[in-house]
Amino acid sequence: MSIGVGIIGLGTVGSGTVEILEERIPFFASELGLDIEIRGLCAKSDAETAPFAARGHRCTTNADELIHDPSIQILVELVGGYDLPRKWISAALAAGKHVVTANKALIAKHGAELFPIAAENKVDLLFEAAVGGGIPVIRAMQESLVGCEIRSIRGIVNGTCNYILTSMFKDGGDFDAVLAEAQKLGYAEANPTFDVDAIDSAHKLAILASLASGKFVDFRKMLVEGIRGIGQIDVRMAREMGCTIKLLGIFNRCEDGRIDARVHPCLLPENHLLSSVDGVLNAVHLEATNLGPTLMTGAGAGKLPTASAVVGDVVAIARKLASGGAPLPMGFFREDNAADLLPRDEIRNGYYLRFTMRDRAGVLAAITQAFKEAGISVASMIQKHSTKGGEATIIFTTHKCAESDVQAAIAAVDRLEDSVEPAKMIRFG
Amino acid sequence: MSIGVGIIGLGTVGSGTVEILEERIPFFASELGLDIEIRGLCAKSDAETAPFAARGHRCTTNADELIHDPSIQILVELVGGYDLPRKWISAALAAGKHVVTANKALIAKHGAELFPIAAENKVDLLFEAAVGGGIPVIRAMQESLVGCEIRSIRGIVNGTCNYILTSMFKDGGDFDAVLAEAQKLGYAEANPTFDVDAIDSAHKLAILASLASGKFVDFRKMLVEGIRGIGQIDVRMAREMGCTIKLLGIFNRCEDGRIDARVHPCLLPENHLLSSVDGVLNAVHLEATNLGPTLMTGAGAGKLPTASAVVGDVVAIARKLASGGAPLPMGFFREDNAADLLPRDEIRNGYYLRFTMRDRAGVLAAITQAFKEAGISVASMIQKHSTKGGEATIIFTTHKCAESDVQAAIAAVDRLEDSVEPAKMIRFG
Repeated sequence: MSIGVGIIGLGTVGSGTVEILEERIPFFASELGLDIEIRGLCAKSDAETAPFAARGHRCTTNADELIHDPSIQILVELVGGYDLPRKWISAALAAGKHVVTANKALIAKHGAELFPIAAENKVDLLFEAAVGGGIPVIRAMQESLVGCEIRSIRGIVNGTCNYILTSMFKDGGDFDAVLAEAQKLGYAEANPTFDVDAIDSAHKLAILASLASGKFVDFRKMLVEGIRGIGQIDVRMAREMGCTIKLLGIFNRCEDGRIDARVHPCLLPENHLLSSVDGVLNAVHLEATNLGPTLMTGAGAGKLPTASAVVGDVVAIARKLASGGAPLPMGFFREDNAADLLPRDEIRNGYYLRFTMRDRAGVLAAITQAFKEAGISVASMIQKHSTKGGEATIIFTTHKCAESDVQAAIAAVDRLEDSVEPAKMIRFG
Repeated sequence: MSIGVGIIGLGTVGSGTVEILEERIPFFASELGLDIEIRGLCAKSDAETAPFAARGHRCTTNADELIHDPSIQILVELVGGYDLPRKWISAALAAGKHVVTANKALIAKHGAELFPIAAENKVDLLFEAAVGGGIPVIRAMQESLVGCEIRSIRGIVNGTCNYILTSMFKDGGDFDAVLAEAQKLGYAEANPTFDVDAIDSAHKLAILASLASGKFVDFRKMLVEGIRGIGQIDVRMAREMGCTIKLLGIFNRCEDGRIDARVHPCLLPENHLLSSVDGVLNAVHLEATNLGPTLMTGAGAGKLPTASAVVGDVVAIARKLASGGAPLPMGFFREDNAADLLPRDEIRNGYYLRFTMRDRAGVLAAITQAFKEAGISVASMIQKHSTKGGEATIIFTTHKCAESDVQAAIAAVDRLEDSVEPAKMIRFG
């Protein structure tokens, strides 16, 4: 069975999705047994579609062409915004097409209208890319954690805000200056309100909270506060208290069954797992019955991370279309399909080496000679005198080198008559 | 369609799986539309099955009874070890049953034999619980990341070793003493070799490396080194270098297509994401094309976390059995099913409050009076004199209190005639 995909929107994420599909379609065919084909692309203008048409894709500026094409079973919406995507997706679902979108604003605002249409027509409306970009948190919540009740969520779900706050901590600078810098670097929009006033975070947290609670959580009814107004003084004080400041989406299931869902900046102890999630990274920290706490961190935005989540959804639907739920393809897991393993000798690493030697003239020269003969480049050396009768502990770190060379050097040093015990070696990660 | 589950093994994870299924079966029926039933439990002795029989379960000491029961479609193996599970799982797969296991040793050692039997019989053999306990890394690799090629993995996949190493860093103590303590606390077995010599980690890394490479990675051919022999001196030196030591499972896809897969202790910079994964926690750090780096952290073992992963697999199979790949149930996402949101006033938090006041006698008394009237308990207070003409910055942190109370206190302070600018409030996370 051949499965047709149509994509509306050829901007950053849309063109990334085409790229990944073009790259991975042979893998889907050979390893997953899925025959997936791009059967139509749509953008606002011929200028936008031209590079894709040049690569042999059928292109149009009329979305309805894709929506009503019977050879397309999966429609991917990557335009963003509310009105047109709402219309397109409704029509596609009603026409019995499965839909994949990265549009969190649409899901948060019109999901309650669209999901029932999907249910009625027995098709999927998937949106992994809508929250946390490439972090597979939606699928984890929908599938992996069905044995758990999610009690709380703490999410860093907006890379722009996290970049700004991180910069204010690391490099100083007040909000306005850091925002201007973020805009210059492309991490913030010219009109930053969607991000810094936490509207985007609110959309995402509402989606997570809906999934976690099994109820529709309306972002328009949530407490939402952005990061404007946080100053360097707050940063300094937070630091004095051993804290950092993060914009968090928060979900709690209250004892009485009510749902606490909100978005605002938070002081977090520096040793909190989320405190080290810096820059444009996103993270979602879940607490669930049975499971306990779990953290997922990764790229929350960007062309290819977001597109990879879109492609994951496309494949999930394609699997169902092709086989009605066939087994996961584990056929590669056979002894006659063994990996060609890198031999131990060819591993390359930096190394930490601790030698215990008699503290005598010439010992250091002998060791460094052994290193030289093995062709190993030393990164640092520290010698410590021991109180034990005339022993010295000598520690070397190396630049990256081959395991076989470092083993040769160790063996040579261990053979020295001044060696008191065998060397201890630990690799740098 | 009613789906029957049989479970072999009623030890820690087995009894946890029964508990979670008993708890969640009503949810699976009402929210997922899945009619799942426990149709048989098996353990070695009547003494082990007695408490389950008392709760009304059909129990046996003969695994074959479950394997050949036509009312059971999903067989769950939670015994551990090699020989019997291998026999049972082969037989169950051959009989057309889907199988779920947490047995990493079995998958690593005999997976190459079992997966082809599963493929031949068109059934699933799922093993999410085999690596990282409750962390949904297997499903992420099998489904979410199909649009990516995984380039590298760094995994902390053995809680015992991570506990020992963490203790050596945090509390001092040499390996033997810390191991003895871990054994006393139940974090290490009486015979710890499976853990501390990294055999368990090797099984897990081999499974991850197989999934990442699409090739069978044989743990018997990997470099595997445990954590014996790491001493306090290594800990102290690592610390002086700004590093920690972690036992890592490592996978790299080499430029030439070969696979680098190994397990050994590693020095990691203290600011590496994995360095803060402490105690019995597990973590898997992936680098994938398109996606970039992603980290998943959580409980790597334990009764309920592991059982929750088993249940996730059972439900994944049940979904396919019931519907042949029907849409995910998003019917709850409707406006007429709105969550009962906790009103903002009822949010409870600790707060950070910064006031800018004229530096005059009585100001502090006026603020603390406002706090007292709002019923807010102060956790700490710092006053800083400003160089600006007679202004003071006064910072309070509060114990947990209601948002309405803190808003009342802020309003009262802002109304004071000595207030220079509105208060800045940030919530503790």
